[in-house]
Amino acid sequence: MSDELNSKRPPVANKWQLERIVGELRDARRAWRSSTGRSQEPGGRELPSRAAIGLIVESLSGALFPMRLGPHDLRQESEDFYVGHTLDAALNNLLAQVRLELRHAARQRAGAPEAGQDIHERAQSIVRDFAEALPGLRRLLDSDVLAAYQGDPAARSVDEVLLCYPGILAVIHHRLAHHLYNAGLPLVARMISELAHSATGIDIHPGAHIGESFFIDHGTGVVIGETAIIGDRVRIYQAVTLGAKRFESDDSGQLLKGQLRHPIVENDVVIYAGATILGRITIGEGSTIGGNVWLTRSVPKGSNVTQASIQNQVGNVG
Amino acid sequence: MSDELNSKRPPVANKWQLERIVGELRDARRAWRSSTGRSQEPGGRELPSRAAIGLIVESLSGALFPMRLGPHDLRQESEDFYVGHTLDAALNNLLAQVRLELRHAARQRAGAPEAGQDIHERAQSIVRDFAEALPGLRRLLDSDVLAAYQGDPAARSVDEVLLCYPGILAVIHHRLAHHLYNAGLPLVARMISELAHSATGIDIHPGAHIGESFFIDHGTGVVIGETAIIGDRVRIYQAVTLGAKRFESDDSGQLLKGQLRHPIVENDVVIYAGATILGRITIGEGSTIGGNVWLTRSVPKGSNVTQASIQNQVGNVG
Amino acid sequence: MSDELNSKRPPVANKWQLERIVGELRDARRAWRSSTGRSQEPGGRELPSRAAIGLIVESLSGALFPMRLGPHDLRQESEDFYVGHTLDAALNNLLAQVRLELRHAARQRAGAPEAGQDIHERAQSIVRDFAEALPGLRRLLDSDVLAAYQGDPAARSVDEVLLCYPGILAVIHHRLAHHLYNAGLPLVARMISELAHSATGIDIHPGAHIGESFFIDHGTGVVIGETAIIGDRVRIYQAVTLGAKRFESDDSGQLLKGQLRHPIVENDVVIYAGATILGRITIGEGSTIGGNVWLTRSVPKGSNVTQASIQNQVGNVG
Amino acid sequence: MSDELNSKRPPVANKWQLERIVGELRDARRAWRSSTGRSQEPGGRELPSRAAIGLIVESLSGALFPMRLGPHDLRQESEDFYVGHTLDAALNNLLAQVRLELRHAARQRAGAPEAGQDIHERAQSIVRDFAEALPGLRRLLDSDVLAAYQGDPAARSVDEVLLCYPGILAVIHHRLAHHLYNAGLPLVARMISELAHSATGIDIHPGAHIGESFFIDHGTGVVIGETAIIGDRVRIYQAVTLGAKRFESDDSGQLLKGQLRHPIVENDVVIYAGATILGRITIGEGSTIGGNVWLTRSVPKGSNVTQASIQNQVGNVG
Amino acid sequence: MSDELNSKRPPVANKWQLERIVGELRDARRAWRSSTGRSQEPGGRELPSRAAIGLIVESLSGALFPMRLGPHDLRQESEDFYVGHTLDAALNNLLAQVRLELRHAARQRAGAPEAGQDIHERAQSIVRDFAEALPGLRRLLDSDVLAAYQGDPAARSVDEVLLCYPGILAVIHHRLAHHLYNAGLPLVARMISELAHSATGIDIHPGAHIGESFFIDHGTGVVIGETAIIGDRVRIYQAVTLGAKRFESDDSGQLLKGQLRHPIVENDVVIYAGATILGRITIGEGSTIGGNVWLTRSVPKGSNVTQASIQNQVGNVG
Amino acid sequence: MSDELNSKRPPVANKWQLERIVGELRDARRAWRSSTGRSQEPGGRELPSRAAIGLIVESLSGALFPMRLGPHDLRQESEDFYVGHTLDAALNNLLAQVRLELRHAARQRAGAPEAGQDIHERAQSIVRDFAEALPGLRRLLDSDVLAAYQGDPAARSVDEVLLCYPGILAVIHHRLAHHLYNAGLPLVARMISELAHSATGIDIHPGAHIGESFFIDHGTGVVIGETAIIGDRVRIYQAVTLGAKRFESDDSGQLLKGQLRHPIVENDVVIYAGATILGRITIGEGSTIGGNVWLTRSVPKGSNVTQASIQNQVGNVG
Repeated sequence: MSDELNSKRPPVANKWQLERIVGELRDARRAWRSSTGRSQEPGGRELPSRAAIGLIVESLSGALFPMRLGPHDLRQESEDFYVGHTLDAALNNLLAQVRLELRHAARQRAGAPEAGQDIHERAQSIVRDFAEALPGLRRLLDSDVLAAYQGDPAARSVDEVLLCYPGILAVIHHRLAHHLYNAGLPLVARMISELAHSATGIDIHPGAHIGESFFIDHGTGVVIGETAIIGDRVRIYQAVTLGAKRFESDDSGQLLKGQLRHPIVENDVVIYAGATILGRITIGEGSTIGGNVWLTRSVPKGSNVTQASIQNQVGNVG
Repeated sequence: MSDELNSKRPPVANKWQLERIVGELRDARRAWRSSTGRSQEPGGRELPSRAAIGLIVESLSGALFPMRLGPHDLRQESEDFYVGHTLDAALNNLLAQVRLELRHAARQRAGAPEAGQDIHERAQSIVRDFAEALPGLRRLLDSDVLAAYQGDPAARSVDEVLLCYPGILAVIHHRLAHHLYNAGLPLVARMISELAHSATGIDIHPGAHIGESFFIDHGTGVVIGETAIIGDRVRIYQAVTLGAKRFESDDSGQLLKGQLRHPIVENDVVIYAGATILGRITIGEGSTIGGNVWLTRSVPKGSNVTQASIQNQVGNVG
Repeated sequence: MSDELNSKRPPVANKWQLERIVGELRDARRAWRSSTGRSQEPGGRELPSRAAIGLIVESLSGALFPMRLGPHDLRQESEDFYVGHTLDAALNNLLAQVRLELRHAARQRAGAPEAGQDIHERAQSIVRDFAEALPGLRRLLDSDVLAAYQGDPAARSVDEVLLCYPGILAVIHHRLAHHLYNAGLPLVARMISELAHSATGIDIHPGAHIGESFFIDHGTGVVIGETAIIGDRVRIYQAVTLGAKRFESDDSGQLLKGQLRHPIVENDVVIYAGATILGRITIGEGSTIGGNVWLTRSVPKGSNVTQASIQNQVGNVG
Repeated sequence: MSDELNSKRPPVANKWQLERIVGELRDARRAWRSSTGRSQEPGGRELPSRAAIGLIVESLSGALFPMRLGPHDLRQESEDFYVGHTLDAALNNLLAQVRLELRHAARQRAGAPEAGQDIHERAQSIVRDFAEALPGLRRLLDSDVLAAYQGDPAARSVDEVLLCYPGILAVIHHRLAHHLYNAGLPLVARMISELAHSATGIDIHPGAHIGESFFIDHGTGVVIGETAIIGDRVRIYQAVTLGAKRFESDDSGQLLKGQLRHPIVENDVVIYAGATILGRITIGEGSTIGGNVWLTRSVPKGSNVTQASIQNQVGNVG
Repeated sequence: MSDELNSKRPPVANKWQLERIVGELRDARRAWRSSTGRSQEPGGRELPSRAAIGLIVESLSGALFPMRLGPHDLRQESEDFYVGHTLDAALNNLLAQVRLELRHAARQRAGAPEAGQDIHERAQSIVRDFAEALPGLRRLLDSDVLAAYQGDPAARSVDEVLLCYPGILAVIHHRLAHHLYNAGLPLVARMISELAHSATGIDIHPGAHIGESFFIDHGTGVVIGETAIIGDRVRIYQAVTLGAKRFESDDSGQLLKGQLRHPIVENDVVIYAGATILGRITIGEGSTIGGNVWLTRSVPKGSNVTQASIQNQVGNVG
Repeated sequence: MSDELNSKRPPVANKWQLERIVGELRDARRAWRSSTGRSQEPGGRELPSRAAIGLIVESLSGALFPMRLGPHDLRQESEDFYVGHTLDAALNNLLAQVRLELRHAARQRAGAPEAGQDIHERAQSIVRDFAEALPGLRRLLDSDVLAAYQGDPAARSVDEVLLCYPGILAVIHHRLAHHLYNAGLPLVARMISELAHSATGIDIHPGAHIGESFFIDHGTGVVIGETAIIGDRVRIYQAVTLGAKRFESDDSGQLLKGQLRHPIVENDVVIYAGATILGRITIGEGSTIGGNVWLTRSVPKGSNVTQASIQNQVGNVG
């Protein structure tokens, strides 16, 4: 499409000035790439795909709970066949996504030459470990389902919990994402988290550590930060935040990444709707945090914190 | 796949140790099933399907509002044909889902032998009643659309309301779900509610009773509990909770199910964003509840409750 | 299907009483149409379609960020081809939707005879302007991506931001919607906003004006009103409301539409989670608004507002 | 993408030499367009679409035979609703395709200025006539189904015929195509014929006139030419050709189009597999033409033509 | 839609006269139904579905040849899982189709009251037998693949044969269809045959009996009749017909169904393209039938029949 | 699933005896694999996919004829963008399929160790050559379209030819397949041919060499063999065979592969329907071969062969 060719062209209806706009968009991309020191990536994108991750998580959910989240016409006679076949496909697809993230990470690290074989083997080993962890994850999730059934007077059956509760959907995603996050795949893990966030309004960073028998009711607006630690048998309600109080910066004003900045919630704690708990504080075992409470200090074991109690105790709010 | 056969197998690349993991997942399922006293369900799942319910609700929405939520190329000449055809398919599909829930419920009730014919007739009668209720539901929904248009200064037309407002989507789902909940289908009803919850962030339990001309603006984070009762011409904003204050337990510490534990909101009440109203209290007719108010006591007709008024009146927060 | 014919019909299984219910639904539609003064629209719906708008936005996102939001196998060699082809299809489809809204608006304006040709030309001119604005929007969005990366200690790369952060998804939608809103297409614009709202829980009215380098973290429950003005380098967190304090009514009690009723947030402001800022007030440059703060008065440049500071300063809340 | 820009580009991996090949393909298109005197068509393709035609025929088949070719879950109670709704959508879609063909034909005719409104009205009138013809077509097709059932000893029921016989599929397509061909839509008609040809191997030109109770058994390889005339109750088998003997040319050697060049087959004729009948000859009423017969001369009423009889009678073949 | 209601309707654009045409189509259906003595079928269609059968055959093909016709990413490690899962789903779906045919057949038999339970058990037993036959069918098909590879000089590998040869596709379909035909399911069997006929132009009636190592090359136009019997190691080419010479009628002129009327082809016969073999004759073991030969008399073992040999031997063609 | 585990299992409904049948199918596969000396392929299938090839051919058809076979809403302004983008995706996908065939071929060749890098480079070079050949193929195909338009009196426009004629579809497929066949990809090439064969009943082996301006009318049943050579401006009709007379065997009775065994058809020949031409003979320039002629000897330039002429000349047939 040289100028010369353009000049010879018959005057066609140039409805959208496409060539000009395409050119300007190219200029904008180049400016961005050079400002962020990006390579020109001649070899294509090579990043994990949200859509692919979505299908993988769906398959894994079916393999974990075949008679509830698998195909609607599955029967026990063929349960194992279904699980084996589905798992194989899902793990192979996951392997491809893992490789994409590992390669991308290698490129980011100062453009070091990629050792393709190493990456392949590391990816394979990560997925193999992940596969081995699945039975344990299933047992953990069973404890979550039971916690939801026992914790909500409106729940009529464990089936209703598994099929309908957004909190369960979020926890299935989180437990898968958390394993992958620990295995060194923050991007794939985050994609899994955000799929749950979009579907449920529950935003759990894949880095958060969560014990067994965990239950989130309603859930919309819940935020759980990257370095939060949550014990066993914890129950939380909609709009609860386990967040950071402030972000540390370095001397140049850049935010420091990786600081421990979110709460520790010990076993058997209940946190009611809208409570905001900020900073690396500890909520002692068995405590109850009331609705809308704003809390930035640790509380001991067995505390019962309400809006009133805070105002009475400390004279002013947080 | 007996051990004998396995031993004769040529050593193929055992990439994921599938047989072992499939076996462990089977063990986890068995442990769960025996711990929850589940039968082995040789006959398949037989539970309503979320995807099927989603398609049914979509068809019903089209049948209720053919020129707005039906196919984009519909014309008035064939409106009735479309409505009749769509309704027939949707009702037949709903019948199948209703039967699944009724059969599941029968199995749950102490494994009583299923009286297949009875269930079929009960399902048919439920769906027939539901069909007869649709014209009335349409009239109710018209009042909701009008309420939204009149209640939001940003609304330019009733079409914008019907096509864009998440509050309307949630109310369409709720009115369908509530009818089915009352007809004894808590699971199907809950699936409908959760479809709306996922799409809008508005979480209305299908048990809640809601009068005409109801409007939820923005809506993300709204929670309305199972036993809530809402009058006519009520307007609520995002992040409002009509929840339970506490859950009753029986002597053994098990939560009691089915208690009346959510608020009664009388006619013509407005509740602003973030207000939290808990327990079986009554908000008197015509009252206004301010943003972020935390309320656990009944207020009389015509009250105007703000954060300030609460603190001044009662000395502490609640 | 006259009565006469019906009487001659053999008695078939009348499972759903379809004819009767279809008739009653038709009566309900007629009652609604005549009560709202709607024409009988013999020519079909002619309203923009949410599904069509969704596909257009997806294509535009790909054209703006081809190597991140375009097809996963795109390579730089064919980037421009992809952008040109995708843009052409998206703009043509957008043109069709724009025409539908303009025609609908013309019909709403007192049934004035449609000047089909005028509408076509206006639509074409709107879409052409929109196309020309795309390179500028891309540059604005680049500033948003960078702001997210720099503003969140958990963000590992700009790629993670673009692929995973709901705040970025919402801002891409908003910047496209805002341009179309200003061009006189409130319905198409609102559909775009609501697509983002449904996916992210972030509800930004397309009328809101937002400066460069804007970052919303977590985002669920954020509401930004129609007449809000937000400066450059502003950062806000989940559940922040920039809303109206009250709605003006005219003498007859009808809400006045189009009043300036939402806050002005100046450059370099940070607003923490759950803060509620209501009315046409101004948050001065560089201010920080703490979590859960309830604010209905302007604050000067450089303010640091917390829940405590408010209670101390003003003696009571809002 | 001017030369200048190209020269500044960084040397990216030019995997496929796309720009060069795209340029050469453009040159090839231009050469073709100028050699065939084609305009440059700035306004887009505007030709009927095979895929759209396929969907229309599928819908019409369902509307004609709702309980056999309509949706599998249709019930008699809603048959009319289905028929009305499906017909409306199919006719509207057909209208769009008809307009495309009429406009294309107008452009072909010496580039006469298109009278858009005239074309719209003519299209509407064609489709309206087509709609009115459908009940008659259904009755004709019923006679075809019956003829197949009675003519094939392997046929077990009329349902098997309608659901399985390729001959019936071909005749449904032909009767629809023939009506549209006569209405001046050779291109749409041909697309319908070729859909059947591809699915069945039966190639009936839409111009052929075919009487009632027509049956083609097996069918693969049947060819029936544009000007063929077939009476009532005719039965033919696979690989039968009703073709042209030779093509007339004008003085310049160009083929003359539109000559009557295919056979007339009178009522109650049977033509066995592989028979080839060429030229504007007449097969007299009630005749039987044996398998593989090669026939280029008329035969009187009641003839029984076999390979042997031909060789004996005429001394040589053809 | 009574007349009364119609008269009150506002005059909307009656574009297609839908009500009238729908009414006339209804009249045509009623005329057909009463002329063929059809019940009014209030309970719906209940006939096997071509689309459902297509999916079942696709699944069975994958289960029979998992590494060639199964999913492209299958690996040996999970082959058995895939086969078991796919088979289970396919057999369940087949069971549903079988029940539909058996019920339909019961209704056809003089409207005898359906014994639902009997039909269910018969269907289950048929499908169970079919499942048990699959390993044997796989071995038969292996012999066919080998015959194709050895019989075609253009075949490069057994993989090319299995992936590309229409003859193999047709034989897979036939062997499945033939088993079901013998089990008393002529309609389901015929649907399977016609799927292959449409895809390949090869028309094998499911009743035909075919021995092992059968190979059809090219195939278009091949017709093999209902009562044909074909031995082992037979090879045939395109456009070969194994048909009936004439149909027997009863005294009233009705065709007799079920007569043995197609050829017997013994072991090791080759039949070249276009040969037509008609009637209940026998082609003796090891014979070769030349291209285009027309044969209506039995030939002994080891015959070599060509067009010339026939004319020489019998003086005329027959 | 060891025996031990099986024995402990509760007796579930063993509806299909799945484990047994899966086991028997596995045995059948093993028997086949060992009898054909197949490896156990632990690494998966790695064969080209028919579905993938189908999508590639569709894209290439669009890139070759953008305004006729490309997307229906394409406009000239964006033609080049579409072509470039489509071509890039199609070539990348083709590259993947080519690699699969090359690797498969390498494995077949005595299990030689795969040199992955070599295969990648060879595949890339093949696809690059193929891309460069596309403009030439487009010019060839233009000559075919023109030949069809000029050769069929029923053809109304070149658009009708391109959109409707099965002969054109077959030739597009053939010209693509032939290039790839020559490049050493017999399997991919054959898949392309069979896609056309299935859709049109025209079976052209990808090895056949065909000159410019080639036209096949109707086409069903045409067979053109692997080593056929066809000159320029040749026209053939339905059911024409250009086949092999006999197959050469080696001493052991194995068919010899790769012999020149199909006809040479020189320039400007016309072959009418049903003619069968067998063996490595030559049809001289400008000859006409009549319908149903059976020809196994060469004929000189300008011959006019009919059924009669053959019988007269040679005394007997064949």
